[in-house]
Amino acid sequence: MSITTGSSSDTKNKETRSVFFISDGTAITAEVLGHAVLSQFPIDIIAYTLPFVATVDRALEIKQKIDTIYDTTGLRPLVFYSIICQDVREAITASKGCCQDIVQTLVAPIQQEIQMDPQPIFNRTHGLSKRNLSQYDARIAAIDFALAHDDGVSLRNMDQAQVILLGVSRCGKTPTSLYLAMQFGIQAANYPFTADDMDNLQLPAALKPHNHKLFGLTIDPERLSAIREERRENSRYASIRQCRMELAEVEALYRKHKISYLNTTNYSVEEISTKIIDSLGLNRRMF
Amino acid sequence: MSITTGSSSDTKNKETRSVFFISDGTAITAEVLGHAVLSQFPIDIIAYTLPFVATVDRALEIKQKIDTIYDTTGLRPLVFYSIICQDVREAITASKGCCQDIVQTLVAPIQQEIQMDPQPIFNRTHGLSKRNLSQYDARIAAIDFALAHDDGVSLRNMDQAQVILLGVSRCGKTPTSLYLAMQFGIQAANYPFTADDMDNLQLPAALKPHNHKLFGLTIDPERLSAIREERRENSRYASIRQCRMELAEVEALYRKHKISYLNTTNYSVEEISTKIIDSLGLNRRMF
Repeated sequence: MSITTGSSSDTKNKETRSVFFISDGTAITAEVLGHAVLSQFPIDIIAYTLPFVATVDRALEIKQKIDTIYDTTGLRPLVFYSIICQDVREAITASKGCCQDIVQTLVAPIQQEIQMDPQPIFNRTHGLSKRNLSQYDARIAAIDFALAHDDGVSLRNMDQAQVILLGVSRCGKTPTSLYLAMQFGIQAANYPFTADDMDNLQLPAALKPHNHKLFGLTIDPERLSAIREERRENSRYASIRQCRMELAEVEALYRKHKISYLNTTNYSVEEISTKIIDSLGLNRRMF
Repeated sequence: MSITTGSSSDTKNKETRSVFFISDGTAITAEVLGHAVLSQFPIDIIAYTLPFVATVDRALEIKQKIDTIYDTTGLRPLVFYSIICQDVREAITASKGCCQDIVQTLVAPIQQEIQMDPQPIFNRTHGLSKRNLSQYDARIAAIDFALAHDDGVSLRNMDQAQVILLGVSRCGKTPTSLYLAMQFGIQAANYPFTADDMDNLQLPAALKPHNHKLFGLTIDPERLSAIREERRENSRYASIRQCRMELAEVEALYRKHKISYLNTTNYSVEEISTKIIDSLGLNRRMF
């Protein structure tokens, strides 16, 4: 999937479609959902993401671009949009694209079910308002917490942690704790087991009172070795033998202390985070 | 918005609806989109988020929960779902909820337009596959880069940075560089101006060759002072006078060096990040 702007020289191939993600906000939801829809079709796309489309003039410029692509290629661009202001929206829907409103499509059935009229709110998904400011501040505080308690930097304030991730170096602890903070406002600390710990692997005394918050990460030795090679080529640290030994040790520790754990090899940070929330029964706070 | 599980004791109030976000993946897209839709209606909700629903048995348990809420309250729960497996999906849609498929609703018009049948892909949005593994690795590498170049920790490798954020302490640099990395795989460094710099504010020599990548953040003094109070109560650092002085200095510097900048006071990290991408013309890579 390539993201280009302006050039239409690649659009002559019959199997390539131009796709527009247009929003009066960040266009992140339009992108995510549009990609979910498009990934089901065997086509190549040229994607144009256009956030903060707030004026009729700007919308008319975009309409012109959509129309030009259609006139040149004979293929209607696919348009995923979310725009509250009616005039701006209508400039887009008057284009020659195949236009779909990603949010309003789902509003009508709800409107009928609850017998109330919707009141569209500008920048509702990824914006700041007085309504959600304290929730937003909680997300930022959670990011601060994750950074202050990354890689065992500090084992103080563990009572404030909602989850404490354990694992060897480069198994995914840091990205996961940052994602938990960023997306869900969850305060996550993480503690690394290093090669030096392996002779007599113990759970640090400071973590023992928090057994119910501990969550272990593990990973396939081959994948860990490849990741570590990127960092320190041909090192003992990255050797498959070392990776295998460290992982066997920590997995034994997880089992001994009855700590829930997950093999992260085939999962994204989104999936790992969601599984941790599920496993520990954490409150999945929305931003 | 409260997130509870199991209890139906709060659902007797007529203006409160139970809402289910159900997915065979993380359910993040269902949540984000569902909240965008529901925020347009003046109702309170009790939200149940149910990720990784992969078996008919699990789906039937959820159907039972939905039906019980309907039988108890007389109000149909609102259900936003995305499930590929037909048997699992049908167990949900057979419930007494008001069910909407968040992705497939948008698929039919595309199918008609491009005259191809969709091939639903399991865990397509926030999952890992061989297809997107290198993109995923780029996201993780970008997070590593952001952490290694946070708060001016290192001014080496600035040629590898795609953007270098400038600003005073607590104006939003760190969460923004992490979000740019996490969501878009963009390598962002950040450099803080401290109170000590203010006597004779200069752009560091190491940054001058990278003028085209620099982006300044600023914020209202009142908001900055409030954020700093959280960190160091009644300090000079948090005083409105100090905040005002620092912000006036850095804004003058941005103007002098023709550095694009943004006041972050009323924007979320999603919005700040998207505006930076737009302003610098960065490639908005999808994860």
